[in-house]
Amino acid sequence: MNEKILTRGNLGIKRFFNLDTQVYNDGALPGKTKELLGLVASLVLRCDDCVTYHIIQCVEQNVTDPEFFEVLNIGLVVGGSITIPHLRHAVEMLEECRKKAKS
Amino acid sequence: MNEKILTRGNLGIKRFFNLDTQVYNDGALPGKTKELLGLVASLVLRCDDCVTYHIIQCVEQNVTDPEFFEVLNIGLVVGGSITIPHLRHAVEMLEECRKKAKS
Amino acid sequence: MNEKILTRGNLGIKRFFNLDTQVYNDGALPGKTKELLGLVASLVLRCDDCVTYHIIQCVEQNVTDPEFFEVLNIGLVVGGSITIPHLRHAVEMLEECRKKAKS
Amino acid sequence: MNEKILTRGNLGIKRFFNLDTQVYNDGALPGKTKELLGLVASLVLRCDDCVTYHIIQCVEQNVTDPEFFEVLNIGLVVGGSITIPHLRHAVEMLEECRKKAKS
Amino acid sequence: MNEKILTRGNLGIKRFFNLDTQVYNDGALPGKTKELLGLVASLVLRCDDCVTYHIIQCVEQNVTDPEFFEVLNIGLVVGGSITIPHLRHAVEMLEECRKKAKS
Amino acid sequence: MNEKILTRGNLGIKRFFNLDTQVYNDGALPGKTKELLGLVASLVLRCDDCVTYHIIQCVEQNVTDPEFFEVLNIGLVVGGSITIPHLRHAVEMLEECRKKAKS
Repeated sequence: MNEKILTRGNLGIKRFFNLDTQVYNDGALPGKTKELLGLVASLVLRCDDCVTYHIIQCVEQNVTDPEFFEVLNIGLVVGGSITIPHLRHAVEMLEECRKKAKS
Repeated sequence: MNEKILTRGNLGIKRFFNLDTQVYNDGALPGKTKELLGLVASLVLRCDDCVTYHIIQCVEQNVTDPEFFEVLNIGLVVGGSITIPHLRHAVEMLEECRKKAKS
Repeated sequence: MNEKILTRGNLGIKRFFNLDTQVYNDGALPGKTKELLGLVASLVLRCDDCVTYHIIQCVEQNVTDPEFFEVLNIGLVVGGSITIPHLRHAVEMLEECRKKAKS
Repeated sequence: MNEKILTRGNLGIKRFFNLDTQVYNDGALPGKTKELLGLVASLVLRCDDCVTYHIIQCVEQNVTDPEFFEVLNIGLVVGGSITIPHLRHAVEMLEECRKKAKS
Repeated sequence: MNEKILTRGNLGIKRFFNLDTQVYNDGALPGKTKELLGLVASLVLRCDDCVTYHIIQCVEQNVTDPEFFEVLNIGLVVGGSITIPHLRHAVEMLEECRKKAKS
Repeated sequence: MNEKILTRGNLGIKRFFNLDTQVYNDGALPGKTKELLGLVASLVLRCDDCVTYHIIQCVEQNVTDPEFFEVLNIGLVVGGSITIPHLRHAVEMLEECRKKAKS
């Protein structure tokens, strides 16, 4: 679907997608930290698709389970009980990623 | 004001304040990373008072300017132009903290 | 899923879940009023899972249909037309609960 | 300012303002409960002006301090630490109202 | 479902639904512009059902693809990357509407 | 302040600011319509600084008072009573702009 948007969308949309990709690259902060930042922002803004995306990236960056749960805990305290359904979604996605890695 | 809330507020409120303090302590992730998580969450949720709080904590954790601007950049891309007034607030607070540190 | 989170999650997450359970208990305000507060908060924050949860609790607290619709009306006026899909969800859940109670 | 809006604004805006006034009147639920619903909704949506308005109305409806803090506690748990600046605002407004009542 | 709400809901809810219908009628601004306003508001508030509704209305008002993508671009820049899942939804809905129109 | 951010901020932030400026330029839709879109998005997201910015741009684009109030009405219905303080702010800004234009 993103490809469709990039084919049909205008120049401004394409440039935004570029910014969105580049912002998580290694820089003064390592890519791993940036993916954690993307994850907590997605959680407090309650966007399941964005949570899924950053969970996958975080797993690739070798984020451990205790690290994950500390990020989720911060999101939960900052964003409140209203984030709980998205916390559940995050934990499900994490389990799925761990299973795939084992198989 | 927080003290007033803690004096007059009920047990549930006090316990929440405790959780809120503890969640940024060193753990699997260092306190510095956690403060960056708190900062980006505050920025995308557009809370100036929370941004101020986490800027001060980040400065104490020796976050550098390039690191700060990378966090703010992620907040800006995730949260959109609607976060710009809070980005401005963050940069003002950062400047104030840097000036105080010099004097 | 909540159990999984409670098993695998850290202490901070567990404590938050405790606070979240206790906050709706009878106190200076009766549990019924607190569930109505939880429902209106869930509606204006547009969280379907949370709306479902509080509808079920409200039905157990013997909230009547006219009371329900007054709460939903407040949520609608405060939160605007953007809450309408969640209002629809609330009414569907309510009908389901009423049917179950009859059977 | 509201008067200016009502004078200059169009019919749709005026009708909305009417709905907004009527929704908190006594009905199946008493006005007091409705003001508590308005307060918690304002807190989780983080609107200081709306919090102020409903605190004043709640004080007129004889809401007690323990009742107030239970409502604020629910708002805090549902909306997270991001609501704390608005919780502080609520407690300040409450103190002001109590002082005025005494004098 | 809306009919059910209108049958069972109270007078305040019905009046709100009326306001919601009338606000997009031709006036000082043409209906087409108003539907575009409804679309961008739905996108930045991230409500897929509302996006669907306004896409359908916009197609009926003969909004062209370049016009659509300019509105979506504004929503994306204002609301940030968190709106991307809803942008994808909007483009899918648009494609579906275009296909139906051809058949 | 924006200049400071542009001087000190990183490349990603500068590029975002560019996108944010360009997105309101004349295109398939006229600049005037785009400013109205920016205004309604700012209102429903409840950002006073953004509302001020777009009111000024709209006045320059010769938006009339009846047009303004129709946009504000849409924002009010979509975003609910929680937008009222920002609606008040918008009307104040509009009055100020009209006065300046006369003097």
